[in-house]
Order: sequence, then structure tokens, then C-alpha cells
Amino acid sequence: MMRGRVAYAGAIHEARPEGQRVRLADGRVREEHEVVWLAPFEPGTIFALGLNYAEHAKELQFTKQEEPLVFLKGPGSVIGHRGITRRPADVAFMHYECELAVVIGRTAQNVKREDAMQHVAGYTIANDYAIRDYLENYYRPNLRVKNRDGGTVLGPWFVDAADIADVNALELRTYVNGELKQRGNTRDFVTGIAELIEYLSGFMTLAPGDVILTGTPEGIVNVNAGDEVICEIDGLGRLVNTIASDAEFGRTSSPMQQT
Amino acid sequence: MMRGRVAYAGAIHEARPEGQRVRLADGRVREEHEVVWLAPFEPGTIFALGLNYAEHAKELQFTKQEEPLVFLKGPGSVIGHRGITRRPADVAFMHYECELAVVIGRTAQNVKREDAMQHVAGYTIANDYAIRDYLENYYRPNLRVKNRDGGTVLGPWFVDAADIADVNALELRTYVNGELKQRGNTRDFVTGIAELIEYLSGFMTLAPGDVILTGTPEGIVNVNAGDEVICEIDGLGRLVNTIASDAEFGRTSSPMQQT
Repeated sequence: MMRGRVAYAGAIHEARPEGQRVRLADGRVREEHEVVWLAPFEPGTIFALGLNYAEHAKELQFTKQEEPLVFLKGPGSVIGHRGITRRPADVAFMHYECELAVVIGRTAQNVKREDAMQHVAGYTIANDYAIRDYLENYYRPNLRVKNRDGGTVLGPWFVDAADIADVNALELRTYVNGELKQRGNTRDFVTGIAELIEYLSGFMTLAPGDVILTGTPEGIVNVNAGDEVICEIDGLGRLVNTIASDAEFGRTSSPMQQT
Repeated sequence: MMRGRVAYAGAIHEARPEGQRVRLADGRVREEHEVVWLAPFEPGTIFALGLNYAEHAKELQFTKQEEPLVFLKGPGSVIGHRGITRRPADVAFMHYECELAVVIGRTAQNVKREDAMQHVAGYTIANDYAIRDYLENYYRPNLRVKNRDGGTVLGPWFVDAADIADVNALELRTYVNGELKQRGNTRDFVTGIAELIEYLSGFMTLAPGDVILTGTPEGIVNVNAGDEVICEIDGLGRLVNTIASDAEFGRTSSPMQQT
């Protein structure tokens, strides 16, 4: 089942896809742009992987790390589908990262990889924006790279794990202004989902709502104000968002609201 | 005003100090050990500073960074006063870090340092445990160093900013089993509170409930299972917690519950 979370007419609603439209839990059916999309769940701890696709690591000219490179993202960076991400005026290179987001459903403590998938509730799409200017080395995916306002786009749907036949064979695609720019497949993970859960739960307890952004494949390009970025993953839908300049971001009416 | 948050008799209560005891919001007065202390507020984004006291940086043999070294901690690592922190069996060096925690009260976006203190709601004490085994360089205060279960102890009290006459002249002290081990003063910050808020709010929006752990002074020592660690800051009280081995942590009755 696919479930979203949208704000509409004074309240937050669970939403389901109804063709190109959305059906709210109370039965109302609305156009996608008539509602404000939130992240499909309230994330707990947000883990993110660096360099988890071999080709992408090569693209960034990093050598393979000895263990998974995992860092945290703050809750303040999260926005939903059709949200707006600010591109600061003073940076030279900002890029999207289309990622499979794995949502924990059952507490995991010291779980072995063969049991790990039982702790997964489901999946969503993440666009984990990065500002490359500050990425000095692979130890430093720091706040200024990864924690900007709107820097973690999640959605549109939370999809139950049971609905994904093989999570290790999903294609990821990113389009910028309609043009395909990034393409990868989860079969090329350096560290797979079950191993990641084994790794993390081996030294800390994972809780329901914790989410693991599993890294991005090769194919990153600079994005500019006005660009529409669509991240698509087989079976999970299409996560749309827009880049705004500092100046546009502050305007009364945003480009996204005008569509 | 000093406010705590405790669980007692089936509910969570606001609590105030009443001599050595606590007064719940409903008027009941109880001994400290009769209640379960939670962190005094639900933290949003948890920022933590590395190497923010010059002498401590020297102790760790790091040279001064060009800008504040800020990393994030996950919500899953947070426990309150009188909580238990697990010391994994397979590590060689785990240490406490007594820190002044600054709690944001008003949204801050691109705030100048001269206005920054208006965005502070108040303060609490943090014990920001670290497992040194994995601290490879100053870019890498990673998950395994800083995000263990019980690795962020907060409390006991949230203290209103107005109650602290000069936040830049507070002494911090840490006692292990009653012996004074760490002593410092917030006047020795490398980057002060107002500058930190200017720095962070310059590239991301700070929200009420966000908390900045401002780093620890020199005087860190290894702690072992069974140790009682008390972090004390002028005007903020004493934050007590206990270290348990992996084995003890799993026992039915913990050492802390027996006092």
C-alpha cells in the first residue's frame, strides 16, 4: 500500500494515490497540486550513506571506504513532495541525490543480516541535496553540505515493504527539467540494506521511524534556481521538487504554488 | 525557573526542584530516585561542538579548526538525569564530556551575533559521551564515537536564560565516583554562543527546541562499568548518570534503580 501525508483544508490527512490525483482518508479526491505534501512519516533518526554506489564514489574521486560511511541529517532539513529547496547565492555547485530511503518498522538491536529485513517497514524516495563546495573529504559530509533548509526531500509515498518484490533490483532515475540525468540500480549497492541494519544495530538501537538514506548512484549535475528535479524509483513513484534562489525563496508567491 | 520532566505513576509531569526533592506540577513532592527523569525537553536538531575549548583541543592533539566543528547527534541517543549509559565491552576508551547545552527558543534565520541571544530560551547540562576508539581525526566524530544508546545525557533541569546572569562565566565540573576530574569555564569557549548561532543560522534555520552542545573543556578520563559520573554547571544543577557494562545493562535490575 502507498500512503502519503498531506495538509489540506486545515488538517493533516493520510492520502492514497487515485490515478494522477490523491484520495484523502475522509474520501475527498483532490489534484496533486491542491494539497501541501509533507514527508510521508515523521522521521526519527535520519541516517545517510555516502559513497554507497561504486561508480558514484569513482565519480567523486574517492577510494572505497573500509566500512559504510554513515552520517546523520537533522529533522529541520526535511520537506515533502513538491517542496522547494533553496539554492544559496554564494555556492558554486549544488546537486541532487536520488536515494532509496529505508524506513525501520521494528526496533533493531544487534540484528544479524539474515534477520534484518524483518525490521524494515517500507520505503520511500529521498532527494538528499548536497552543496559540494564544502565537501572537503569523505570524512566530512558536514552541516553545510547536507543540512540546508529543504535539503532532505522525502516522499511522495511510504510504500509497505511487502509491496516491493525485490528491493535489490530497483532502478533509480533523476530528471532535471524533464531530461534524464541520473540512472542507477539498487543492485549496485556497496553495502546492502540488510548489512546496513546489521552494521548500525550492532552499536546502537534502531527505532521505528528511523530512516536510512542508502546513497546515490553516479550522474550528479549542478542544479540552478528554477530547475524542477524529479527523482523516480521503480514501484515508489516520482518525487518532484523545485530549486529556488535565495531571492525567489523569500518571495510572497513561490514558483511551485503557481502551477 | 528550573523545570524538569519526569515519569511518575503512569504519566509524564513537569517537575521543579524542592530542596533535594522534586515537586510535580500536580503538587506531589517525591524523592529524586522515586521518579524516572527524562530529558527536560524534546530536542529537535541536536548540534554538538568539537574542540570548542582551546585546552581540550590541545589535549586531543588537534590544531585549531578554521571554523566551528559542528556535528549532529541523533534523538535515539538521548536519556535524562539518573539514566544509564552502556559501555560496550569491545572498546578501550570511553569518556564523558560535560557541556553547556543551549536551547533555542525562537526561530533563528540569518541572525547576527549581537541579536543572537534573544533566540536562546535557556540552558541545561549535557554529558556528551564519546568512544575514543573510533575518533580518527577531527572531521570524524562519527556515529560509533558519539551516537551510542545513552550517549547524550540531558538535564536535570531546563533553566530559563533570564536566570543565568552571565552564561560566559559558568564553571563546569565533572566528578567520577565523587572525585573531581574535569574543570573548565565557559569563558574559554573558542566560539561563543552568540557566534555559534550566527554561524549556524547563516546557512540553516534554527527552530525552537533545537539544542547546541557547546563542547567540553580539558580533563577527560576513561570511565568504566559501575562508575557514577556527575556533571555540574554553575546555576544549572548536577546531572548524574551511571555507566553499565553490556552485561549489566541487560540485567533485570539496574544499579541505578537500587539506590
